[in-house]
Amino acid sequence: MTRPDPDRVLIFDTTLRDGEQSPGISLNTSEKLEIAAQLARLGVDVIEAGFPITSPGDFEAVQAIARNVEGPIIAGLALTQADDIDAAHRAVRDADRPRIHTFISTSDIHIRHQLQTTREDVMGQARAAVAHAREFVEDVEFSPMDATRADVEFTAEVCRIAIEEGATTINIPDTVGYTMPDEFTAYLRRLYELAPELADVVVSVHCHDDLGLAVANSFAGLLAGARQVECAINGIGERAGNASLEEIAMLLHTRAADVGLQTGIRTTEIARTSRLVSRLTGYAVQPNKAIVGRNAFAHESGIHQDGVLKERTTYEIMDAQTVGLEANSIVLGKHSGRHALQQALEELGFQVTGQALNQAFARFKELADKKKQVTALDLEALVTDELRDDLGAYALLWFDVEASSRRPPHATVAVRTPEGEERTGSFTGDGPIDAVFRAINAATGSDARLREFRVDAVTGGQDALGETSVVLEVDGRTASGQGVSTDIIEAAGRAYVRALSNAQRRSRTDAAEPSAPELAPAS
Amino acid sequence: MTRPDPDRVLIFDTTLRDGEQSPGISLNTSEKLEIAAQLARLGVDVIEAGFPITSPGDFEAVQAIARNVEGPIIAGLALTQADDIDAAHRAVRDADRPRIHTFISTSDIHIRHQLQTTREDVMGQARAAVAHAREFVEDVEFSPMDATRADVEFTAEVCRIAIEEGATTINIPDTVGYTMPDEFTAYLRRLYELAPELADVVVSVHCHDDLGLAVANSFAGLLAGARQVECAINGIGERAGNASLEEIAMLLHTRAADVGLQTGIRTTEIARTSRLVSRLTGYAVQPNKAIVGRNAFAHESGIHQDGVLKERTTYEIMDAQTVGLEANSIVLGKHSGRHALQQALEELGFQVTGQALNQAFARFKELADKKKQVTALDLEALVTDELRDDLGAYALLWFDVEASSRRPPHATVAVRTPEGEERTGSFTGDGPIDAVFRAINAATGSDARLREFRVDAVTGGQDALGETSVVLEVDGRTASGQGVSTDIIEAAGRAYVRALSNAQRRSRTDAAEPSAPELAPAS
Repeated sequence: MTRPDPDRVLIFDTTLRDGEQSPGISLNTSEKLEIAAQLARLGVDVIEAGFPITSPGDFEAVQAIARNVEGPIIAGLALTQADDIDAAHRAVRDADRPRIHTFISTSDIHIRHQLQTTREDVMGQARAAVAHAREFVEDVEFSPMDATRADVEFTAEVCRIAIEEGATTINIPDTVGYTMPDEFTAYLRRLYELAPELADVVVSVHCHDDLGLAVANSFAGLLAGARQVECAINGIGERAGNASLEEIAMLLHTRAADVGLQTGIRTTEIARTSRLVSRLTGYAVQPNKAIVGRNAFAHESGIHQDGVLKERTTYEIMDAQTVGLEANSIVLGKHSGRHALQQALEELGFQVTGQALNQAFARFKELADKKKQVTALDLEALVTDELRDDLGAYALLWFDVEASSRRPPHATVAVRTPEGEERTGSFTGDGPIDAVFRAINAATGSDARLREFRVDAVTGGQDALGETSVVLEVDGRTASGQGVSTDIIEAAGRAYVRALSNAQRRSRTDAAEPSAPELAPAS
Repeated sequence: MTRPDPDRVLIFDTTLRDGEQSPGISLNTSEKLEIAAQLARLGVDVIEAGFPITSPGDFEAVQAIARNVEGPIIAGLALTQADDIDAAHRAVRDADRPRIHTFISTSDIHIRHQLQTTREDVMGQARAAVAHAREFVEDVEFSPMDATRADVEFTAEVCRIAIEEGATTINIPDTVGYTMPDEFTAYLRRLYELAPELADVVVSVHCHDDLGLAVANSFAGLLAGARQVECAINGIGERAGNASLEEIAMLLHTRAADVGLQTGIRTTEIARTSRLVSRLTGYAVQPNKAIVGRNAFAHESGIHQDGVLKERTTYEIMDAQTVGLEANSIVLGKHSGRHALQQALEELGFQVTGQALNQAFARFKELADKKKQVTALDLEALVTDELRDDLGAYALLWFDVEASSRRPPHATVAVRTPEGEERTGSFTGDGPIDAVFRAINAATGSDARLREFRVDAVTGGQDALGETSVVLEVDGRTASGQGVSTDIIEAAGRAYVRALSNAQRRSRTDAAEPSAPELAPAS
């Protein structure tokens, strides 16, 4: 890979790989496709779409993204084993620009305790993996896992081998979020000295936020010469997550005059991407989150408000419109027609026609009857809610609930099973939501247990849509589901049956025969 | 102030000042006292308890904290005006170790546009303010606001004046979250050169997270010589908030061998402090938040889980117990008595006796009837819920709700007014919660509008307590309230009437005669 512009930073988005590795997140293929399409609109350079060998579901999603999403490079992750790399290749090969990303740890703590092997073996595996990947694709990325806790000389040796075998990107991960900016700078400088070949490839950084330094460490990496940053929307990922894409992008944007590095990110797509990912993963963004938190651009103190009224830049270094907040003024009402809805959805980036448009229009009319103004945020929520419905899943048909502070709440529900049967169930619970959930368990014969439950309002206002997230434990594993409605009980019930459907779908795919070569489990 | 140990970093907590300046947070005095007491248990060195002149409520809370919370220095914030400093002094003077913190901007953008004055005037104001504060207390902190966007030479001149007049701490704020670690280091080094007197006082840093760099910039400040960090629990504060206290503390703790700086933080109190602040402010902590997020210590990927099972340190640089997660094994049940409850509460740091214990015991029994195991998290939630009830507030007496997917939901509620009257109201709404809220409006004659609504489960499990947060708009201002119950409708109703009570209390105190000298408004 050539680097025509030395000041151009490549944004490698790992929302669908490291981000999706967060507990309780289980996206289906259509949800992953929707996020990938939005990442392409956002202007990321690389989408790491998944880790194909880990499950048939992951494989299918990576393949669907490789086949359907245009623009970014589509990467699949793989351990060094040949079958792992084969699976990654089969998953990404239909992309315009496929990449295989292979990795092995270089830290002694990982080599001894996890891999239970030797440095020599790690060198051999790295060499074989990159060589094998290069048989399939020209664009190969190699990562020495846990590099920041590894011996820098050994890591440099492994990187040199990877480059010798044809790796075009070398990514230095701070896998456990341990390093500090100056330390990371010094580590990278030493690596450049020990492996001068790094000047001929793209050096990348991948930082975790365990000590709150993911963005600062990534930025230190760029200042030390890296030109790719691995990051995730809303900073999701293993444990405390990855460097937050929006913070990296807006740091480089806001301080461009002093730093002089550019990305290809269309900043006005940031807010929408953040909302989409939050909604589909069920991972809330805290109000004080930088860039995309609800209050990131709000001023509460009288002194600050006074300053901003006199001159915006007294307390604002960024404009909310730059990140796509308040940018959209779409407002529909009960008299808006099908065409107006279609146009509004197109403006939001959703291509909806035929039966899907009919369905979206029906939901829209239902909402417009209850809510005076239907905004862009509402439409986004409704359309993503529709994306969640698959064939072959449970559906909530109707419910009746009586709740009172003076007697226990009682619920009756009707559910359509994946087989098309209608079943009803009743329960008297501790609260109305609890009663509905237990009534659904009774109707479906499930013994799912609720682990987490959350409700957020999509917009402000008394008539706001409520967005509900549930995480269930089914047979020792977790599954999540989300639902949207102006009625919190309906939203909760929808989320619950979707989580049940997700759990069932996963147990089906996990039980699938691993005989097909692309479905072989990781060794 | 002397600095006996050059490696000791002072933790200055501004949760109750900058943190409380976040939109929608309105803590009452008993809530602020509870947080301050927990901050003392956590081991912070300084509690900035508020900005006394801004409102009678703020004044009262700072005074109550100064009088009741032992251990930390208690600081009150003040602009440079004499009456502002007078108010801060009256609020903090009863503390064992009072501090007055005064500030004025040194950036030209603030001087020109907000203060609409000259550099000469700023120097004069800084001199007068510090001199005036030193007439009252020995411990005076001065901050040149917006320092990182100010001319460093002018800022140094103002700092020298403040030190000459007796300031013992000089705090360098990155007010708008604009700086970058290397830039901040260079700025501070230059400041030390220009104002060598800084070596004789404590230098402090106060960083905001607008570009995701608050912790990294604070850390850069420490490496450049600062020995006080201003930070807030969960990183709350204006816009994207302040540096997160728990991230700073755990960074210094985890990397102590390499960095060599210590704090007085008892890390095992971190998780509880975070939960308390989140609960009382209504500000959720995102699951991927470093240190205190629900998933900060969770491993999802098979590779990571496998590694941790073989050897914990393969993927963990901190132990969850170090921050107080999973540390508490208190479990009570329906047969637990009053004494067991009192002991459990004491273990959690709550001193509850007499009528308060009776009330807590009644709530506990009610919960134990519904929930098999009552845990430390449940007790914390119940006790903090009790803290929210004031005399002279609205109370939800009972409610009846019918909700169905087949007809509009209907609610009837009874509310006791602050005057002791019982009033009922009914409404048919878009959803059951909406119907309850509007029925409460009907009962109380209020025209409050819902701006935000959120529900979280306190613990996992089908029988979990639900914790509800609402933000209302009443007469153009926002007010928040929280409620806890196993019944989501009850929790929501409680939160709503508390938000109404908070709004009413504030409009009462705002309307209070400013004739008493300590209640003079800011000029």
